[in-house]
Amino acid sequence: MVLGQTPHHRHSAPFVPPTFAAVQTDLSTLLNQALAQLDYGQQPAALYDPIRYIMGLGGKRLRPLLTLLGGQLFTDDLAPLVKPALATEVFHNFTLVHDDLMDQAPLRRGQPTVHEKWNASTAILSGDVMLVRAYELLFENVPAAVLPQVLRRFSQTAAEVCEGQQWDMNFETETTVTIPQYLDMIRLKTAVLLGFALELGAVLAGASAADAEHLRQFGTDIGLAFQLRDDLLDVYGDAATFGKRVGGDIISDKKTFLLLTAQAQAGEAQQATLAQHIGQPVPDAEAKVAAVRGVYDELNIRPQTEALINQYFEAGLLHLERITVAAARKAPLHRLALQLLERES
Amino acid sequence: MVLGQTPHHRHSAPFVPPTFAAVQTDLSTLLNQALAQLDYGQQPAALYDPIRYIMGLGGKRLRPLLTLLGGQLFTDDLAPLVKPALATEVFHNFTLVHDDLMDQAPLRRGQPTVHEKWNASTAILSGDVMLVRAYELLFENVPAAVLPQVLRRFSQTAAEVCEGQQWDMNFETETTVTIPQYLDMIRLKTAVLLGFALELGAVLAGASAADAEHLRQFGTDIGLAFQLRDDLLDVYGDAATFGKRVGGDIISDKKTFLLLTAQAQAGEAQQATLAQHIGQPVPDAEAKVAAVRGVYDELNIRPQTEALINQYFEAGLLHLERITVAAARKAPLHRLALQLLERES
Repeated sequence: MVLGQTPHHRHSAPFVPPTFAAVQTDLSTLLNQALAQLDYGQQPAALYDPIRYIMGLGGKRLRPLLTLLGGQLFTDDLAPLVKPALATEVFHNFTLVHDDLMDQAPLRRGQPTVHEKWNASTAILSGDVMLVRAYELLFENVPAAVLPQVLRRFSQTAAEVCEGQQWDMNFETETTVTIPQYLDMIRLKTAVLLGFALELGAVLAGASAADAEHLRQFGTDIGLAFQLRDDLLDVYGDAATFGKRVGGDIISDKKTFLLLTAQAQAGEAQQATLAQHIGQPVPDAEAKVAAVRGVYDELNIRPQTEALINQYFEAGLLHLERITVAAARKAPLHRLALQLLERES
Repeated sequence: MVLGQTPHHRHSAPFVPPTFAAVQTDLSTLLNQALAQLDYGQQPAALYDPIRYIMGLGGKRLRPLLTLLGGQLFTDDLAPLVKPALATEVFHNFTLVHDDLMDQAPLRRGQPTVHEKWNASTAILSGDVMLVRAYELLFENVPAAVLPQVLRRFSQTAAEVCEGQQWDMNFETETTVTIPQYLDMIRLKTAVLLGFALELGAVLAGASAADAEHLRQFGTDIGLAFQLRDDLLDVYGDAATFGKRVGGDIISDKKTFLLLTAQAQAGEAQQATLAQHIGQPVPDAEAKVAAVRGVYDELNIRPQTEALINQYFEAGLLHLERITVAAARKAPLHRLALQLLERES
């Protein structure tokens, strides 16, 4: 299958990139069609209905999109990549089902979570089958020559995502969390899967080991930037567009990069303000958010966070640059990274 | 590696079976040594300690033992089978961790369950990593030529075990469960994994597809017999040797083969006795057990159950007989089946 309006060949003709929006629409359509055709199983319905439910809630399909965009650096024939790409989406949704249960989250994408709509046992067991189905999507569709490598990297990534979730839960009750520990947690919980999704596309498209590794690191760095931006938007985002309650992390005492940096840099009065609000019962949530944000403002936490986001973003772009394909082929991934971080350039 | 005291070769010399006890001791030692060397991961300890804990609680290691005994039908070099065999043990323990949480069971092998010793989130997440590690044990140690087949059958089995657990949970609240439905539930929840463990050994040892399939069906049939015997012992077992509370299934209103058969065959007075006790609050557990067992006795439920156990046992043995290796090589598996069912012959 050749995507985009103008068929092109890697070595025989100059690459003319289609517009980014056109690429993404094409690929998203492709992915959603393939997702709609997946058969997770039928009976018992109590096991398989929740899988169809969570997979049907939508979302950006970012991870399989990254696999296709990663592959598109090296090949124009993306058809063989579609089903393996879906493994990352099924795996991601498996983690959402289990994490939402662990976090007792009532809503996911604005709809009841699986354990709310059914019950905890269903969330556990349907999630388990989703992990099995993710493996199946890989080994049923990945060529034998690269299968052991893909399974090894997928399993390593899967374990790391679990490690990230465990660190995140540990941090809730730990009094001292360092900034490197926090960054490592979000790397494991969020960034490594984005890196794997891209690497998977590269490996399936026959990229060199060096190129696949650069692509993986590009994804990990962009993932870190993306998560830090999420932390930032929680405090400084526009309530109308953020999609979550602004200040939610502050209200729930979440040890984000912003809070940990503020705690590390606060003077005596600021320490007192933070101690007065963080980890204390919340009589007035708005006052708590305002007080903590006040400390952040005094300490310039926002520009410091933006600087770190930019560092990861630039580090990721350096990896993208070092991949040995024409710059024009990299345009869609470059644009996606910009889009994820809502930057202009 | 050649096991047993007298090295032997499949085609060149008559096979002299070592004593069954010696074989099993050899293989169990081999398995426990290999299990002790597995590295599940280190950090965070809250994720990996529970895995070491549940894997360290012991047990018969029945499933990997079946893999080795299945392989030993066809080869004397069992060394390459040991690590793949452990995948079935890690997978089995993963199901125990998640099932114990779903069932809110306080004890496993006489020790606190993972969710009791830690918490529910730990049981979910550590279990998830165990499933990943089970896959790793397979794809890191199974030759490429049979890897897709092994992964496909393992994944199918894994999903079936989840389906069995879901049916089991469904049956708790369903008023009408048929005997075929019950038998299908225990087939999925318990028997198919025993069948897969044996099939895995056959495939890894280079057996023909027909032999591997007979071995799988032998395992499934023996597994069904084994589970039905467990149902029987719950009512008619010796409290000193059964290891669980006799009558526990009756007290908890579990829809076992015995109860479903009794309900299907009961006359009016027996229906009334059952209805008076099953699904009712238990003021006197011993009286409840005695009353239900009284109905079982009147209806000859025990000999009927024993007859079905024997049917599965004999059906399994027919599959074992049809495997195209010398009868002497089958002796250890034959003996294990007898031992599992605590039969003399």
